[in-house]
Amino acid sequence: MEKKRIWELGRDSVETYRGKKKLPLVLVVDNVRSLNNIGAMFRTADAFLVEQMVLCGISSPPPSPEIHKTALGAEDTVAWRYYPDTLEAIEALRADGYKICCLEQVKGSIELQKFKVSDAGKYAIVVGNEVDGVDQRVVDASDVALEIPQHGTKHSLNVSVSAALSLWHFFLQLT
Amino acid sequence: MEKKRIWELGRDSVETYRGKKKLPLVLVVDNVRSLNNIGAMFRTADAFLVEQMVLCGISSPPPSPEIHKTALGAEDTVAWRYYPDTLEAIEALRADGYKICCLEQVKGSIELQKFKVSDAGKYAIVVGNEVDGVDQRVVDASDVALEIPQHGTKHSLNVSVSAALSLWHFFLQLT
Repeated sequence: MEKKRIWELGRDSVETYRGKKKLPLVLVVDNVRSLNNIGAMFRTADAFLVEQMVLCGISSPPPSPEIHKTALGAEDTVAWRYYPDTLEAIEALRADGYKICCLEQVKGSIELQKFKVSDAGKYAIVVGNEVDGVDQRVVDASDVALEIPQHGTKHSLNVSVSAALSLWHFFLQLT
Repeated sequence: MEKKRIWELGRDSVETYRGKKKLPLVLVVDNVRSLNNIGAMFRTADAFLVEQMVLCGISSPPPSPEIHKTALGAEDTVAWRYYPDTLEAIEALRADGYKICCLEQVKGSIELQKFKVSDAGKYAIVVGNEVDGVDQRVVDASDVALEIPQHGTKHSLNVSVSAALSLWHFFLQLT
């Protein structure tokens, strides 16, 4: 099984990608501190046709050398905007028809793999701070909480890993 | 929706976790340079009941402060071993009944989400170096190549993200 050469991967140019139809899927980043994590999320968002990243609070927007180190240029292809306040961001998204899905370990959550994504829906996934997770006020303002089942000693995945697992779940159902 | 308190997460102690039945699932780490990535993979492996991590070549084993920074202690709960040579590692695993599944963009690959995991099977997933991916000799020695479909400008996910998506795919089918 021969590895594909770079020209066999079908990679889009920045211009082609920007003009491409994206999924009705937004990633809201609620107060994530690590620029490495933000960069990795840009790279995943690029792969899975995410419409927009919404960086909130202490989540630093590009340009930044540290974001670039893990985003590898995806910070220039994925549309993004910044809101100082996460609640304001999700209210704007909800007004625009997005269902707000926070990713958090809460009472009444739905396991990620059981969540049925509707073809006709628009979704905003909210991931939270490395230590504190999604803010309780943001959880309260969400339409649904999704939880990744975890069986070990930590019950805490890296935030860029959690974001990727949820984007993958939506990507598979929306494509 | 109230966030679960730490004592409501059902986290295992290190001793309980070590004694717990794991999935027939091994993660082979072929020459991954970044200790942050190795640490994040330990943390994911802990969550998804991975039987063992097999660190090969330049993939540094614990203990290491940098691995600890992202593993957060999961390097003490997940069983691991080290092989200087990845080919030797996969031959030992194959002899022990594991199906060798490399994660790579190759001709003849199967899309990850389409790969059917058998309840009766034992699987070793191989992920590769941040720049060069899985070594061609290791790809050639694999039973199957799995590929994560990607639609953007990069076609290259962070290795800890790729590892997590594939472990999640196997975890869902093996539990």
